Amino acid sequence: MNIDMINAAAARLAGHARRTPLLSSPFLDEIAGRRVFVKAECLQHTGSFKFRGAWSAVSALAPETRAKGVIAFSSGNHAQGVAMAARAHGTSAVIIMPADAPKMKIDNTAALGAEVVLYDRATEDRDAIGDALSAERGLTLIKPFDEPLVIAGQGTTGLEIAEQARAEGVEAADVLVCCGGGGFLSGIALALEANAPGLRPRPVEPEGFDDVARSLASGGIERNNRTSGSLCDAIITPAPGQLTFPIMQRLCGSGVVVSEDQALQAMVLAFSRLKIVVEPGGAVALAAALFHPDKSEGDAVIATASGGNVDADVFRAALDRFGT
Amino acid sequence: MNIDMINAAAARLAGHARRTPLLSSPFLDEIAGRRVFVKAECLQHTGSFKFRGAWSAVSALAPETRAKGVIAFSSGNHAQGVAMAARAHGTSAVIIMPADAPKMKIDNTAALGAEVVLYDRATEDRDAIGDALSAERGLTLIKPFDEPLVIAGQGTTGLEIAEQARAEGVEAADVLVCCGGGGFLSGIALALEANAPGLRPRPVEPEGFDDVARSLASGGIERNNRTSGSLCDAIITPAPGQLTFPIMQRLCGSGVVVSEDQALQAMVLAFSRLKIVVEPGGAVALAAALFHPDKSEGDAVIATASGGNVDADVFRAALDRFGT
Repeated sequence: MNIDMINAAAARLAGHARRTPLLSSPFLDEIAGRRVFVKAECLQHTGSFKFRGAWSAVSALAPETRAKGVIAFSSGNHAQGVAMAARAHGTSAVIIMPADAPKMKIDNTAALGAEVVLYDRATEDRDAIGDALSAERGLTLIKPFDEPLVIAGQGTTGLEIAEQARAEGVEAADVLVCCGGGGFLSGIALALEANAPGLRPRPVEPEGFDDVARSLASGGIERNNRTSGSLCDAIITPAPGQLTFPIMQRLCGSGVVVSEDQALQAMVLAFSRLKIVVEPGGAVALAAALFHPDKSEGDAVIATASGGNVDADVFRAALDRFGT
Repeated sequence: MNIDMINAAAARLAGHARRTPLLSSPFLDEIAGRRVFVKAECLQHTGSFKFRGAWSAVSALAPETRAKGVIAFSSGNHAQGVAMAARAHGTSAVIIMPADAPKMKIDNTAALGAEVVLYDRATEDRDAIGDALSAERGLTLIKPFDEPLVIAGQGTTGLEIAEQARAEGVEAADVLVCCGGGGFLSGIALALEANAPGLRPRPVEPEGFDDVARSLASGGIERNNRTSGSLCDAIITPAPGQLTFPIMQRLCGSGVVVSEDQALQAMVLAFSRLKIVVEPGGAVALAAALFHPDKSEGDAVIATASGGNVDADVFRAALDRFGT
């Protein structure tokens, strides 16, 4: 993995992925005690940064390989990103989803043209289902994060952050990144290393699912005890990736951990102050910027809002609790 | 008023106003039966396009005039735009607001550094209060829409729409604009006339407050029977402006009228499909695009989302009714 792969992904994404804005509000600056900038990837196609990695991977396939179709395992944002990228390339996507995934996400993925294959988590082996389909049809697997082309696509966000931070006069700051398997963070880290070395990438995770923070602290891959039961579902993974962890280890600052309530409160502040819709897992970085200011240094901080695919009832409940 | 004034405003706004994104979603395209693009001015500083006009007017004042301060009458978005623009120019702003304006808007305006002067709508004359303060301190009045510098500032949105539509391959389409006094619409109309003549600007208003649609139909200035009692408060004005009406008459297509429920439903679709927060008055144009497709022609339509300053309880209630 290197910056050339990210630049190449940026060329493939040009005119297809959105250049998302870097937002700010004096009201958030006041809460944090420093300037706060939010990279609004919730405004990306399909509502999350995952579209970048999916497009990067699908667009890099040889035409004859791509024509046979792609396959992905996902219950959420990666599913929608791969579905939309495949459709735009005129090929088919099979998405293997657990039958108990949120109905809206299943419906959206299907509506984006993907063939959704549901499996029973308790009784079926999703890998066996995927392997059988791939073998039969010659499908190419698009992994969610531990894949160089996907990391390169997510890294294009970092190229934009470097440029946008410079335009705001920010040369040195922490860049807080919502972190699951580390594809987004490691891609951003490589882009910043090359283009904005004064910006320091750091993972943010919800309490109880801080595998990356613990792995960075211990120097080896640590796992989460569980991978469900969080409103921050979009960024819950079993452990850092084999490819992403060494990159994070080399380039990232220590992790920050926030409570689920802090994520919900950040979601409400993004609503009222930035006018964007962020899902709980996409709000953890902003929560770290706002509610753990002592964990960062400097007069500015940048937080990614990595996705906005939140159910209306979750959003409503957050407004109930934290809206004014 | 001419395009040179808008280009000059764009130069003054460069690096200060945000270039807001033009968003889209295949799910909205499907509802409308054509491609739908949304100009997300809710992401502008202070949460509405009003910041552009305020910045344009404040930045154009002679330094010695500006140093004495500015004054505005507003209970909402114009107030916040003027407050922030004045503060950024190192001068003071007096905002005359009705004492019964939403507390949040009063608080926000004050928090942006303005001196808020409250008056009692029933017993006090706001113009007399404003005149006395202006005479005493030498303040310059920043009108909300019937002012060339303000129209020029709002028109910079049209410059961006022209460029962004071209990048999307859209050469001919209706541009549906949320319309109060017509400052936003007439500024956009002048910009499109010069830079994208295939794009036709049209006003959108809520039922019962369709003064601009009726004025365009009759050829003379028509007034609303009432100017309160709508959730779309941000775009309710007594009548089209003296400056804006002739521009609209010359350049705009006929008006579209939507129900308040349609505006709320569009607000919820902007939440779920675009991940932006839009206030009811800022959602009428999207409502027209989605729910009155027969009123437009062509294979694409552009709608402005003019502002996002909505109270949490209004938003929650809309999600309750129309969220899935």
